[in-house]
Amino acid sequence: MTQWIAGEWLEGKGEAFTSLTPYSEEVIWQGNSATQPQVEQAVSAARQALIAWKKRPFSEREAIVVNFAEKVKQHSEEIAIAIAKETGKPLWETRTEAAAMAGKIAISIRAYHQRTGESQREAAGNQIVLRHKPLGVMAVFGPYNFPGHLPNGHIVPALLAGNSVVFKPSEQTPLVGELAMKLWEQSGLPKGVINLVQGGKETGIALAAAKGIDGVLFTGSANTGHLLHQQFAGQPDKMLALEMGGNNPLVVSEDYGELNAAVYTVLQSAYISAGQRCTCARRLYVPVGDKGDALVAALSTSVAKIAVDQPFADPAPFMGPQISSQAADHIVQVQQDLVALGAHALVPAMRKHAAFVTPGLIDVTAVTELPDEEYFGPLLQLVRYQTFEQAVELANDTRFGLSAGLISQDDEQWLYFVDHIRAGIVNRNRQLTGASGDAPFGGPGASGNLRPSAFYAADYCAYPMASMEGEATVLPETLSPGIEL
Amino acid sequence: MTQWIAGEWLEGKGEAFTSLTPYSEEVIWQGNSATQPQVEQAVSAARQALIAWKKRPFSEREAIVVNFAEKVKQHSEEIAIAIAKETGKPLWETRTEAAAMAGKIAISIRAYHQRTGESQREAAGNQIVLRHKPLGVMAVFGPYNFPGHLPNGHIVPALLAGNSVVFKPSEQTPLVGELAMKLWEQSGLPKGVINLVQGGKETGIALAAAKGIDGVLFTGSANTGHLLHQQFAGQPDKMLALEMGGNNPLVVSEDYGELNAAVYTVLQSAYISAGQRCTCARRLYVPVGDKGDALVAALSTSVAKIAVDQPFADPAPFMGPQISSQAADHIVQVQQDLVALGAHALVPAMRKHAAFVTPGLIDVTAVTELPDEEYFGPLLQLVRYQTFEQAVELANDTRFGLSAGLISQDDEQWLYFVDHIRAGIVNRNRQLTGASGDAPFGGPGASGNLRPSAFYAADYCAYPMASMEGEATVLPETLSPGIEL
Repeated sequence: MTQWIAGEWLEGKGEAFTSLTPYSEEVIWQGNSATQPQVEQAVSAARQALIAWKKRPFSEREAIVVNFAEKVKQHSEEIAIAIAKETGKPLWETRTEAAAMAGKIAISIRAYHQRTGESQREAAGNQIVLRHKPLGVMAVFGPYNFPGHLPNGHIVPALLAGNSVVFKPSEQTPLVGELAMKLWEQSGLPKGVINLVQGGKETGIALAAAKGIDGVLFTGSANTGHLLHQQFAGQPDKMLALEMGGNNPLVVSEDYGELNAAVYTVLQSAYISAGQRCTCARRLYVPVGDKGDALVAALSTSVAKIAVDQPFADPAPFMGPQISSQAADHIVQVQQDLVALGAHALVPAMRKHAAFVTPGLIDVTAVTELPDEEYFGPLLQLVRYQTFEQAVELANDTRFGLSAGLISQDDEQWLYFVDHIRAGIVNRNRQLTGASGDAPFGGPGASGNLRPSAFYAADYCAYPMASMEGEATVLPETLSPGIEL
Repeated sequence: MTQWIAGEWLEGKGEAFTSLTPYSEEVIWQGNSATQPQVEQAVSAARQALIAWKKRPFSEREAIVVNFAEKVKQHSEEIAIAIAKETGKPLWETRTEAAAMAGKIAISIRAYHQRTGESQREAAGNQIVLRHKPLGVMAVFGPYNFPGHLPNGHIVPALLAGNSVVFKPSEQTPLVGELAMKLWEQSGLPKGVINLVQGGKETGIALAAAKGIDGVLFTGSANTGHLLHQQFAGQPDKMLALEMGGNNPLVVSEDYGELNAAVYTVLQSAYISAGQRCTCARRLYVPVGDKGDALVAALSTSVAKIAVDQPFADPAPFMGPQISSQAADHIVQVQQDLVALGAHALVPAMRKHAAFVTPGLIDVTAVTELPDEEYFGPLLQLVRYQTFEQAVELANDTRFGLSAGLISQDDEQWLYFVDHIRAGIVNRNRQLTGASGDAPFGGPGASGNLRPSAFYAADYCAYPMASMEGEATVLPETLSPGIEL
């Protein structure tokens, strides 16, 4: 019973697939994917449920979503364990993800009112009323790295605005997707307002191609996102909100302050979640010279000491495995490719059992044609630079624009950085992987289509309806020229 | 000297074209269109000017834009006359357009701060700062029906946000486009921050295809808009904001109130600007029975009496000509096609000299397959309905969703209408062609890609940059598990 359609749990009729713990390769979920007709069935169920759902007063939708937050809080340890099992992220980290899922509700309610909602004023005998209306049926595509928090960041605002949803979790994390749906089921959500379809690429293609959807909320890779954008060509009537990746720079200035604090900030920026956050630093810019040498030396030592282990290990590790052995293989392959281009591994990433790879630090200063790709794992590329201006220019040399960071105590440098850098998350002396839930999220360029999630999520879940209203028609004292009644 | 590139007036090097008064077919503008290399030159000029423009404090950009508002006020009669000559709209109407151009500045400044701008707060020892950054070089495509006001609604928010612009007016209204640029020139705008390219389809294609643009702000036909959406497939990094047309329904209920006031509201909804507003009512739903008959009779009488004349005529007309004789021919052709499908012309639209066509009212109740097209002129299609619910269902039977209106004194009907109708501008007992400048504008479906202009224009001229800032890096008292420094 892997699909949740119109409030019923059904068997998928497509091919069988499984979810493995990436640290021990045990099967923790198995089922069949949804076929194209099942996806259509889910979309029809969402269309049907939409009629009543969108007409309910906001307060009623809000109450159900708040119920969900309560269910998440009650089951937070179960959620944290499920995420840890399915992604391999350390339990201390997945506990923060479960907490973020519950925290998203209050933020989304605030954002609904602030960015959309309703307002009214009188002007020249007219009521000027602004309402916001749901778009309709939203297809939500979730990623594997935050299989609870990130789809939740699409689903909660979509439901609050009055949309219905068909959710396809990543095929790497069906267990967490299913668990979230069970909590929605317990929250009193009417049947069919959310529907779950499980599966891989074919299920996803069927969902994006379904005529009955009004929009897509997507978090995932830049490649898939760009294919979706191709698929929706000539259909401006369908909302396509893409949150994609980044090739994020972190610039360390000469004036980086206390060595250990700077090193710690780099570690948190590049290696948290085993490098599987879209905001992770991928490129590190460090000045040539003694101060830079000292930082690189200390950083190399600390990277080599990062504890890597399974999520429930005692003592707890900083990093778990990659999401899959293929993903782990890929990181080691990338390292090999960079070395072939002239890079020098300061701390080599090493392939271990299951989906484990150890953190790597690789000096790519000598690489003249550095690929502008997102390597979604714990491999940080180091570039030594001559001048601060050069570092900022190199930092901007990417088609992406998700996040960018500066470690510097110099206020002038920070102002210069803010003025010149092109990215949506731009942090100073803080880990690049930290973002406020109260702020918008996302970046320009190949990182997304300018419809950030987080606080601005409300914007892409609704369209504005502006009205001029009078209780009766009014004949003005002076008619327009050229009219006779 | 028809192109304004990098602050210089240059001859176009492409084919010659002219602008005619649509009421007397006199040449009021002639010049050569911009070639593809000239368009590239304009985009380069905008890229170059962007560097300094985006770094200037908001207050400096604001001051220049406010200067422009002053210039518009000083030259408002000249603007009104130019618009009247080039579009044929009556002078009393074009005076309101000139006023709207100046009024747009204060509204856009408010919207900038409310929707984007900057904010800052402290949380847990971090400064959480939200800034908004310009997208870069914006290509602005203007329409002919409001050749001053509508491009201005793209240009002003784009400049305030720090973008630079390449503007291509409609090839039907080069004179008004040029006049607006001359006022910008006088406002102290740095060279190259706006560039003007004149021309038709080929110039437009060159501009949309230019690699150096970061976004397109388009107001125009649904056909062109959908082609642009095709052209930008797979490029989510480029902002594409489309304001397109509508096939807008106006529903008159049994309870329409005072007859003359209702008729007047219909006239203002369907025939203002000679039916060349994108919000104009195209379909009129009137109940069968005596009350409906009375309204149709009074409406028919008034439509036949609408004064149609050249813009400077005394007494002033309600309607001028269409934008061109081709456009006028098209309306008469459409009427003929509808009659062939079974429609009955109550007041036939009649082709007159130059680009004139008289207003038409056509009963299409008997047409079983009514085309869902926007007929951009003074031809209102009447449908008689049995029940209010049926009327709303028919009103929604369109791929567009720009505007929709209800004439009814019954509050219950209004609530039902708001709940069920799918449109962005939804008015009650007020002309459908009225919209508050303080509200967002635009609609779902084929009417646009959910990036409304007017008050929400700021949203698509900037991307948010969210920061967590500290003056120095900080080593927390407790490090994350698994890290050693």
